[in-house]
Amino acid sequence: MPPPDLPRIGILTISDRATRGQYEDLSGPAIESALRSYFATPCTYERRLVLDEIPDIVQAIRDLAAASCALICTTGGTGPAPRDVTPEAMALVTQKSLPGFGESMRTASLAAGVPTAILSRQSAGIVGRSLVVNLPGKPASIRVCLDAVFPAIPYCIDLIGGPYLEGNPEVVKVFRPKS
Amino acid sequence: MPPPDLPRIGILTISDRATRGQYEDLSGPAIESALRSYFATPCTYERRLVLDEIPDIVQAIRDLAAASCALICTTGGTGPAPRDVTPEAMALVTQKSLPGFGESMRTASLAAGVPTAILSRQSAGIVGRSLVVNLPGKPASIRVCLDAVFPAIPYCIDLIGGPYLEGNPEVVKVFRPKS
Amino acid sequence: MPPPDLPRIGILTISDRATRGQYEDLSGPAIESALRSYFATPCTYERRLVLDEIPDIVQAIRDLAAASCALICTTGGTGPAPRDVTPEAMALVTQKSLPGFGESMRTASLAAGVPTAILSRQSAGIVGRSLVVNLPGKPASIRVCLDAVFPAIPYCIDLIGGPYLEGNPEVVKVFRPKS
Repeated sequence: MPPPDLPRIGILTISDRATRGQYEDLSGPAIESALRSYFATPCTYERRLVLDEIPDIVQAIRDLAAASCALICTTGGTGPAPRDVTPEAMALVTQKSLPGFGESMRTASLAAGVPTAILSRQSAGIVGRSLVVNLPGKPASIRVCLDAVFPAIPYCIDLIGGPYLEGNPEVVKVFRPKS
Repeated sequence: MPPPDLPRIGILTISDRATRGQYEDLSGPAIESALRSYFATPCTYERRLVLDEIPDIVQAIRDLAAASCALICTTGGTGPAPRDVTPEAMALVTQKSLPGFGESMRTASLAAGVPTAILSRQSAGIVGRSLVVNLPGKPASIRVCLDAVFPAIPYCIDLIGGPYLEGNPEVVKVFRPKS
Repeated sequence: MPPPDLPRIGILTISDRATRGQYEDLSGPAIESALRSYFATPCTYERRLVLDEIPDIVQAIRDLAAASCALICTTGGTGPAPRDVTPEAMALVTQKSLPGFGESMRTASLAAGVPTAILSRQSAGIVGRSLVVNLPGKPASIRVCLDAVFPAIPYCIDLIGGPYLEGNPEVVKVFRPKS
């Protein structure tokens, strides 16, 4: 069992079909695997799975924030389809919105040759001392988006009063401006 | 007369002066001409003209959505001037906002050498099964913006339950990700 | 004393520590110095200093707009930290939001090698006949952001009914589209 003060990371899969067992959740494990390689600091990872329903998403994000997760990555529900409601849940649960995350993730996906990246409504925001970042639902797109924003994540967590997290310099270059 | 099940496209010119007949609406016809060349699928085109008034814009978008327009392109009213209120009408009428459209159109206009593109408040959003996209008021700027976002439009219409529309590959490359 | 009809520019430093005298306000003077070199038109400059409190920021922006400032540049309070509330004040005080300013400033800061630029929640908006632009708190970052958006500022002020301001062509290239 990890020591109780190990930093915590939440991963929330938002998917009707994965929640109902109609297919396997590949995105949640893909995010956990990516983050384990990006963070040099040992962390505990909490994974949750919810339906594409605003109240369920809001509650799951609140629970993960209440459980002191410094970073909460969601996957799924950010497109334009009727069941895609992650941004609407974000608007209800976050105290602050960080539009630069969505811009950077869309720009990175466009640069990776995916013109439909403009359909993504991914964003990021603050819930108490937790940074919530929306990642895409498709496992293949997760790394492109995470690479675009990860360098700024540890410093953001510093600014909101979370634990000091170090990146793995062999995998990703974390940036902290000189104060 | 076209068969009743032909996909429908709405084009809404938002302009006090064009509505009052103080000058000719050149933007609406320019958008229709562009879309007729971009879509390989035959469609019917509905054109409307309204004042720069929030209730008029909201009603016209609702009417075009109720008339089963899969795509509604607006032109005009997206600048910072007092009479520019298209974004305020969009905020009232759309169920979902798609910020990537505005980002891409501004980026394309900037790249085309128009530093004042940052003044544009163009966006896009969903109303029922209709995708609403704000285009600029100036005919010369319409193609730059439409080219930036058109490749993603048919797939977006798929996702919201609209008709399957094909692009004209000699003019524009439509993108649909492999599922 | 300048003639009463000289265009006015407001500069608002938003900082708990500078307001309490815990450190010197370097950002306000840096913005004034930059704008004096960018504008060829002589202007009067009004500087204010407020706490990172939403009501104080709202009141200061309203006061500067009521004092006929054509342009109001704020500095500070746009990050994700608990005391950073400039965007929340902007949402209350501006009649229109101009998302292209924030996008361009973040893009310019990213291009200048600052990956944490995505944490900035800078934006711009309209209050009556005043354009309000959020600049970063750090003096070193101000010019990068101002350079990204300044070319569009005089034309924006034209559109909202403000004074005709000319740029200094040796320092910055102002852009006005042909009508």
